[in-house]
Amino acid sequence: MANGKYRIPRDGQNDHSREQAQTRRQFLKEHTGAELSHTGQYSIDPACLPGNIENFIGIVQMPVGVAGPVDIDGEDAKGRFYVPLATTEGTLVASYSRGMRVINECGGVKTTVVEQFMQRAPAFIFDDARQAREFGSWLDDNFDAIKQAAESTTSIGRLTHFEQWSVSRVRYVRFNYTTGDAAGQNMVGKATLAACQWISDNYPGDCEFLLSGNMDTDKKHSHLNMLHSRGKRVIAEVTLKQDVMRKLMKVDTRVMARSSVLANMGAMLAGAAYNGPHSANGIASLFIATGQDEANVVESHAGLLSHELLPNGDLYLSVTLPSLIVATFGGGTGLPTQRECLELLGCYGKGKANKLAEIVAATVLAGDISLACAVITGHWVSSHDKYGRNR
Amino acid sequence: MANGKYRIPRDGQNDHSREQAQTRRQFLKEHTGAELSHTGQYSIDPACLPGNIENFIGIVQMPVGVAGPVDIDGEDAKGRFYVPLATTEGTLVASYSRGMRVINECGGVKTTVVEQFMQRAPAFIFDDARQAREFGSWLDDNFDAIKQAAESTTSIGRLTHFEQWSVSRVRYVRFNYTTGDAAGQNMVGKATLAACQWISDNYPGDCEFLLSGNMDTDKKHSHLNMLHSRGKRVIAEVTLKQDVMRKLMKVDTRVMARSSVLANMGAMLAGAAYNGPHSANGIASLFIATGQDEANVVESHAGLLSHELLPNGDLYLSVTLPSLIVATFGGGTGLPTQRECLELLGCYGKGKANKLAEIVAATVLAGDISLACAVITGHWVSSHDKYGRNR
Amino acid sequence: MANGKYRIPRDGQNDHSREQAQTRRQFLKEHTGAELSHTGQYSIDPACLPGNIENFIGIVQMPVGVAGPVDIDGEDAKGRFYVPLATTEGTLVASYSRGMRVINECGGVKTTVVEQFMQRAPAFIFDDARQAREFGSWLDDNFDAIKQAAESTTSIGRLTHFEQWSVSRVRYVRFNYTTGDAAGQNMVGKATLAACQWISDNYPGDCEFLLSGNMDTDKKHSHLNMLHSRGKRVIAEVTLKQDVMRKLMKVDTRVMARSSVLANMGAMLAGAAYNGPHSANGIASLFIATGQDEANVVESHAGLLSHELLPNGDLYLSVTLPSLIVATFGGGTGLPTQRECLELLGCYGKGKANKLAEIVAATVLAGDISLACAVITGHWVSSHDKYGRNR
Amino acid sequence: MANGKYRIPRDGQNDHSREQAQTRRQFLKEHTGAELSHTGQYSIDPACLPGNIENFIGIVQMPVGVAGPVDIDGEDAKGRFYVPLATTEGTLVASYSRGMRVINECGGVKTTVVEQFMQRAPAFIFDDARQAREFGSWLDDNFDAIKQAAESTTSIGRLTHFEQWSVSRVRYVRFNYTTGDAAGQNMVGKATLAACQWISDNYPGDCEFLLSGNMDTDKKHSHLNMLHSRGKRVIAEVTLKQDVMRKLMKVDTRVMARSSVLANMGAMLAGAAYNGPHSANGIASLFIATGQDEANVVESHAGLLSHELLPNGDLYLSVTLPSLIVATFGGGTGLPTQRECLELLGCYGKGKANKLAEIVAATVLAGDISLACAVITGHWVSSHDKYGRNR
Repeated sequence: MANGKYRIPRDGQNDHSREQAQTRRQFLKEHTGAELSHTGQYSIDPACLPGNIENFIGIVQMPVGVAGPVDIDGEDAKGRFYVPLATTEGTLVASYSRGMRVINECGGVKTTVVEQFMQRAPAFIFDDARQAREFGSWLDDNFDAIKQAAESTTSIGRLTHFEQWSVSRVRYVRFNYTTGDAAGQNMVGKATLAACQWISDNYPGDCEFLLSGNMDTDKKHSHLNMLHSRGKRVIAEVTLKQDVMRKLMKVDTRVMARSSVLANMGAMLAGAAYNGPHSANGIASLFIATGQDEANVVESHAGLLSHELLPNGDLYLSVTLPSLIVATFGGGTGLPTQRECLELLGCYGKGKANKLAEIVAATVLAGDISLACAVITGHWVSSHDKYGRNR
Repeated sequence: MANGKYRIPRDGQNDHSREQAQTRRQFLKEHTGAELSHTGQYSIDPACLPGNIENFIGIVQMPVGVAGPVDIDGEDAKGRFYVPLATTEGTLVASYSRGMRVINECGGVKTTVVEQFMQRAPAFIFDDARQAREFGSWLDDNFDAIKQAAESTTSIGRLTHFEQWSVSRVRYVRFNYTTGDAAGQNMVGKATLAACQWISDNYPGDCEFLLSGNMDTDKKHSHLNMLHSRGKRVIAEVTLKQDVMRKLMKVDTRVMARSSVLANMGAMLAGAAYNGPHSANGIASLFIATGQDEANVVESHAGLLSHELLPNGDLYLSVTLPSLIVATFGGGTGLPTQRECLELLGCYGKGKANKLAEIVAATVLAGDISLACAVITGHWVSSHDKYGRNR
Repeated sequence: MANGKYRIPRDGQNDHSREQAQTRRQFLKEHTGAELSHTGQYSIDPACLPGNIENFIGIVQMPVGVAGPVDIDGEDAKGRFYVPLATTEGTLVASYSRGMRVINECGGVKTTVVEQFMQRAPAFIFDDARQAREFGSWLDDNFDAIKQAAESTTSIGRLTHFEQWSVSRVRYVRFNYTTGDAAGQNMVGKATLAACQWISDNYPGDCEFLLSGNMDTDKKHSHLNMLHSRGKRVIAEVTLKQDVMRKLMKVDTRVMARSSVLANMGAMLAGAAYNGPHSANGIASLFIATGQDEANVVESHAGLLSHELLPNGDLYLSVTLPSLIVATFGGGTGLPTQRECLELLGCYGKGKANKLAEIVAATVLAGDISLACAVITGHWVSSHDKYGRNR
Repeated sequence: MANGKYRIPRDGQNDHSREQAQTRRQFLKEHTGAELSHTGQYSIDPACLPGNIENFIGIVQMPVGVAGPVDIDGEDAKGRFYVPLATTEGTLVASYSRGMRVINECGGVKTTVVEQFMQRAPAFIFDDARQAREFGSWLDDNFDAIKQAAESTTSIGRLTHFEQWSVSRVRYVRFNYTTGDAAGQNMVGKATLAACQWISDNYPGDCEFLLSGNMDTDKKHSHLNMLHSRGKRVIAEVTLKQDVMRKLMKVDTRVMARSSVLANMGAMLAGAAYNGPHSANGIASLFIATGQDEANVVESHAGLLSHELLPNGDLYLSVTLPSLIVATFGGGTGLPTQRECLELLGCYGKGKANKLAEIVAATVLAGDISLACAVITGHWVSSHDKYGRNR
């Protein structure tokens, strides 16, 4: 039984203070024997933490390395960027840096955000499929009023459109919003609840709903999010020059193209969320460094790596990330070290989320170039021997 | 051009020293204007970092909260655990804690690791499909010698079996290993390269190979990994008592069962990697706190949440995570704060990886109970209003 | 070499005559030794065949059984139907008939078509992702003109909307049409080619296109078609009465609900296109009997079987077929025996396609009820022993 | 209510006679008004039908055209084949024939069956996940006895191995068999039921089971069947010569390679079961002509089309069908017209199933070559205008 004796101490008045954290660490030490001495050392003022954590006990110190620079020709990210990557995996920073050097030697990477939405998707349940269908039509007819109800809860979020699916006697409705520079998951949850309440009050019929029927799909990869962007759909492109690849990577672009076909076929056979080498590494490291919601890596890592061998032997390469969820405002972006890492990229605050998305895509492309070449040449293993731990 | 002027300073002798990190921060400030003052403050000795990071510039301070306790009846995890979660997302720790309280009131959670493997999957290319098929037979015939070649590179990894797939004139072969308490991705890469070299030397025919053909599938979710465990396949089970759910969560177990069906149907329609509410949140937070490879969240978050309403009104609930990749040794697990968090769970070092896997599964189940109830009762939005930032 | 000696005889003037078919059979006998005597016997006039077959040599005689009757409460299918099923698989007709009897005893099945579209999806290729995005906007701005170009080729097809996806520097555009009572695959191919030519002539920029980039997705199952209906999205619902199920099927509805959960979980784990027992059997048999394009079974068989155990012990059951492609006009529907089978259902000709779709969904539901019960009670094997061949 | 008045007449003694079929057609005419005159005309003796159909009313006359010849260099199919295709879709036979001509001009197609299995997959349910895991080990330990129990029901089927998956407290076990020249779905159902009964009698613990938990996965496409062959895994390969493609198809092999990349990317984005143009067309038509179970098209159409542009400009192309289910014995293969079509291919009876599988794969490849070129050149639409109906 979770009786008082075992309860983690709580203090409503000053729940995030250094003292309160210390009290909790002391309690944990008594109950588990674990010292949390490094965890208890941090430079930041815990007064910044309410809204980011509960039962605060201290800080994980995650090392940050810097990759790059990388030359980006984006619409929002323009110029030369040094990319902070928080990781504990040896080789990672070195590998992304290597890919960035190749990109620079080939003239830089072009980046484009092509669309962006954030969703909450309630399920509405009826007596039969016909009622569910009629409800769907009613929803479309009342879009403006529903939009007004939803947007009454937020100064930033804008309801753009519904997507609807009938299954059985259920109508799954995906409410699509734009959310400015916030990731917006909570914002759209709140707005959609308000919308559902308006619907519930105004629909001329019975209307039972569940605020999420898993068609969002929040905090998990889904094929749906591959098709219909959750977050930003961003594309990075580069043309790898044959001579640069030979000189820097000791790889023939024709071999690289052929290997990509094998990897594509493997990914299709595996039913993989991504067909390139390792989008997740760069995304996770950048997310942690810049205060993104770390769980969003699962949605964000999905994508398609595409190649075309050009007649002159150069290799056009692009990565498409359909559901990259990034924020430059709200969530963990304002915490001191995270904010510093965003500032290193010129990406802190309002009007910077697309810029950050472009940098993420460029970083993913750099990492995939580097790892693809390492797999081909066999450096994959030797570089882990040099930089990594698992010797 | 990436000329010297823009290059991040490097010093082979002392690359992870405080001084070197300071030099790099100074360089970055000159080139970007960004101050990295908090990032530059840390208690750990950077001498522990080689093998975990390159181009080290400092530390991200990620707040840690503690959830629980949770009563676990596992094979390796037995007793009451306080779970450290590193996150910047408000509500998360409180929500997992709430689910743990429910679990405790219902008698605890039972956890079981059912199997575990780590893979590297080269592609072997031949002149035609028939040769690829013959090669597959030859591989099976020479398993013992290949095993010996692979294991010559590691004192821990053991090659257990091949899985093979023929596509076109390519043979994709998934080398399955056990890797002790390490995650083992690099270990199996090295072992498989040695195996491939042995194969290349001994196969009586031409034998071209690529060390990974994306059938591993490393650093991405795949349906293959849902079927064939990459990491540990771990299951957590609880029977939620009707009266406890009513009292603590204000939720009827019948309503919860019905909502689960809607969520399952939504997940199937979406083509989702997980059919419950949010496995990724707990996994990502625990991974960061305990020094796991943060990118592995993408493989690890896949799974199946399963329910059965019992005749007495109680609700049996279980979560199956087929590809949970955890380590208690190697990688980031030895860094000071990460090690402390592992020690808080009694999970640092050898012989502890299954215990950690069981704790992760119990945590995921707790979080799903809490969020499922919050979605049903509408607390989801109100609790984010209370704890979160996106107001 | 395919020299004249081996060429199948052809006669442009009278290619589908009995004589020409006889000549070809004679030729085949000479070259292969195979007698095609039954194949050469048919009652229909081959003059009806141009447009349906080339190199005509005769007829496969596929046996037809009749299942039912089944009581349908649809919007277009109302009343009692006898369903012709063409198959060579023993047990199939008996099993569907058994399910229909259960449905009737439970008050009939309710059917609803919720939406319908047919697609062709060209890929447009550009120099970079930004151009592809701009093109997408231009398309939307020019919808009316494109619609006019597309519809100039058809008196029936109507372009309703685009769906667009950016990947790399490619814009995949799914042209959605309504196609009356025809399946419409060729109709929309022709219309979309005309649209593409208009686009090519009018787009102020270079515009390379491929008429299909596999986002249709024609003649194959896809998750996309699960989400976005190709053909008709049709739903059939029944409430199985506890006492009827006990009496007729010797099955407890609670056991049936529990088995459905196991089957759902299995289907999710398998990554299956359908989570019920066997939609494909009924669809394939009805398709062959009624002159549907037999290859469309692959798209049409996808779906979701959904259940809910009601408080009184009855079991609500529904099947959702998101991409059922049926026609009552065009294609093979006009051939004599196929037309007769359509007439048996009152489904020949214009204005009948929704009716046919409703009958197909009702049939699928009947078959799934019967097989689900057979699996539970073990009759599955014994009934195949009784009716089937593989003894 | 399904009262006697509406019941389809049945006569246990002579259920498949011409007279009985005539009685039923008369009954249907009275109740629906539909004449079934052509349906009632057939040359075959209905005495051959028991085991293939119930409630027999007559025959659908499905036109057959012959495609080819095609030169096949298989292990079982060797030589020149004329392929019967039963279809009502204009253009289909002509298009497959066109592809076969190209194949012949390029030196023929090489075909290989790489593996073959048929499955039934029961679900075993326990009190908790640990028991389910222990059961799995017990199963492996008792393989020989279980094999004996399973094989006691069949003279042909051989149990080769289990595949096992733990989810929640359920153990899904896929029993893999070889089934000679029969498709074997019923054979393995019967054998697995016997195995389950032996298990139920001998397992030292409680053991509840469901004969199928949808992991077979029978009569539906699944990603599982893409990975683990259900039926035969067969591969067809050709090297398309640059000059032949230019001359016969007016297509540059480089353009064809580029289009294939676009189609691959589209298929990945769509989550398609096949990445080529239209495997289902050829398979469905060959299946109907040769008495295959027509519903198996859904499993059989899955696959991977793979290409490689060679340095000399030729294009290597292969199709891999992982779950092609074909029989040359049992089911509908013995019906007169179907048998004749099998004989046309030299594929009737025992020892011929691999040969038939190779012919199917060769046919699919021919059709994909033809349609891929048609999409590129725009002939797709014009040929449907010439041969098809949907004008």
